[in-house]
Amino acid sequence: MSHTQPIRLLHYGLGPIGLGVVRQVADRSDMVSVAGVDIRPEVAGKDVGELAGLGRDLGASVTATVGEAVGGAQVAVVCTGSHLSDVEPQIMELVQAGLNVISTCEELSYPFWHHPEESRRIDDAAKRSGVTVLGTGVNPGFVMDLLPLIASGVCLRVDSVYVRRVVDAGTRRGPLQAKVGAGMSVEEFRAGVQTGKLGHKGFVESVAMIADALDLGVDTISENIQPKLLDRSFGPWRAGQVAGIDQTATGLRQGEAVVSLRLLMYVNADDPRDRIVLRGVPEVRWTLEGGTPGDQATAAITVNTIRRVLAAPPGLTSMKDLPPAHWARG
Amino acid sequence: MSHTQPIRLLHYGLGPIGLGVVRQVADRSDMVSVAGVDIRPEVAGKDVGELAGLGRDLGASVTATVGEAVGGAQVAVVCTGSHLSDVEPQIMELVQAGLNVISTCEELSYPFWHHPEESRRIDDAAKRSGVTVLGTGVNPGFVMDLLPLIASGVCLRVDSVYVRRVVDAGTRRGPLQAKVGAGMSVEEFRAGVQTGKLGHKGFVESVAMIADALDLGVDTISENIQPKLLDRSFGPWRAGQVAGIDQTATGLRQGEAVVSLRLLMYVNADDPRDRIVLRGVPEVRWTLEGGTPGDQATAAITVNTIRRVLAAPPGLTSMKDLPPAHWARG
Repeated sequence: MSHTQPIRLLHYGLGPIGLGVVRQVADRSDMVSVAGVDIRPEVAGKDVGELAGLGRDLGASVTATVGEAVGGAQVAVVCTGSHLSDVEPQIMELVQAGLNVISTCEELSYPFWHHPEESRRIDDAAKRSGVTVLGTGVNPGFVMDLLPLIASGVCLRVDSVYVRRVVDAGTRRGPLQAKVGAGMSVEEFRAGVQTGKLGHKGFVESVAMIADALDLGVDTISENIQPKLLDRSFGPWRAGQVAGIDQTATGLRQGEAVVSLRLLMYVNADDPRDRIVLRGVPEVRWTLEGGTPGDQATAAITVNTIRRVLAAPPGLTSMKDLPPAHWARG
Repeated sequence: MSHTQPIRLLHYGLGPIGLGVVRQVADRSDMVSVAGVDIRPEVAGKDVGELAGLGRDLGASVTATVGEAVGGAQVAVVCTGSHLSDVEPQIMELVQAGLNVISTCEELSYPFWHHPEESRRIDDAAKRSGVTVLGTGVNPGFVMDLLPLIASGVCLRVDSVYVRRVVDAGTRRGPLQAKVGAGMSVEEFRAGVQTGKLGHKGFVESVAMIADALDLGVDTISENIQPKLLDRSFGPWRAGQVAGIDQTATGLRQGEAVVSLRLLMYVNADDPRDRIVLRGVPEVRWTLEGGTPGDQATAAITVNTIRRVLAAPPGLTSMKDLPPAHWARG
């Protein structure tokens, strides 16, 4: 791939995922970082290579706004937030500046069901500018939505979809442990769920992608978050405290669950793995051992999908409508 | 999907897989069988529904040549042979008649490496006619080539690919048992391999798809077929007779195996399953329990991919370059 011009990237949002993308791009000859955007004053003016701990500058310094930054970038990698209400203005500004957008915003992974107005606005703007907008990631975007769809490709009938993902939060960064409420009391946990601070985002979007694609007649999508408690002390945590989340998202057809997703994400989880079961003909049972590590893999699928975004027709798309992303030596 | 016009199909080749496609289409409202082609005199004039054992006619009778049959079909489903040398003239005739083509021809699954001339001819003709040509199936086309590529989507580096598929030939149709040499002596088996009568087709094409996509620097693709012997009597077979095949296909970079595919297909196989392992960062280990049943699933993925073929740009394509096929209520 090195004989063609490298793809020029703008990095919008330089938290753990955004910097993971920077590090992977730095190892490739087919992509180059040309700009960074982050609203935090403490990173303004710094080089994204320095922020990523590479020990060298990449010639892409951080500004607070897109206007100053665009400088020839073709694709913006947006890793700023989980909620479309926060990320839509950023996407719109980038799209209007003529950039393709790939984002780890969870609600962008399949926004057509829960955010139809925002989806229409983004799609219209992208088509006007002749660019493509995509939400991606490991979850949502791959394990619990795209993969069950891909698994259904060998079925002549699917009656229902069941996916169960177990993630060991104890092997992940601190923010994940905070996100799942590790060490909280049950009361603190419930308050955190109420205010939206706890829990996995993008879960109902995963159900929506599956429901729309399989045309299963889903009329209602519901979600539930319960605490998973520690049954014995582990690290800094004590028995009876919250270990993490036990979250479900369900697609119902006339009260019957036809899409059932369950995510267990807690410290010291036994045997982390992803499990996909399709009831139908034939029945499909896939196991992804060890699960699919979150942050690093989310940065990887983002990088691996950039070429697919550039080749896609203009508009707001989703992972199910692009040729599958795969790694390639770059 | 029932509110749009059904997709009109021509079925070319009405053996087990071709008739499996007919049966699945008969259950759907979004596709309709309009014609059949088969060179065997004993099926001429019969309705494809009758041949498929549906107990009713579908209004698509079988002729010996394409010229008589086309009648408004948009897509031809070609299930006639494994070798491109046999199937290319059929594809060319269909393409020149303006039909899209989807085929279970194993060598068509990824013909660009081993059949570059034929690939160019088919691609040119398809582009001239504004239609799309695709080879598909469960294997090749899905389990041992497309899925490892999809699995690599979450990797930031892949060093090598290993796929192992175990199929119980004892649970499949007689032709499969014949194809793997069940009940033969070792001498008969070796003679059958020599003449190309035994063994899985499309294996080197699977390696080529992976090698090209991942850009792993593969310079040589090799293949080997060994007999798997019965260690005890089973059904009509005796210990010491051939139980089936142990076939490998390998992609080498300067003598080092970077793509290793192994297919064990024999009667009374223990624990049939597909196993995908990617060495790299992160390491990926997927298990598809029970394997992926061959004939029924190959007919299913063919039917499920038809919409993707219709939406694709003209030319000869491959499964890795289309949005993933998934089942949908039809």
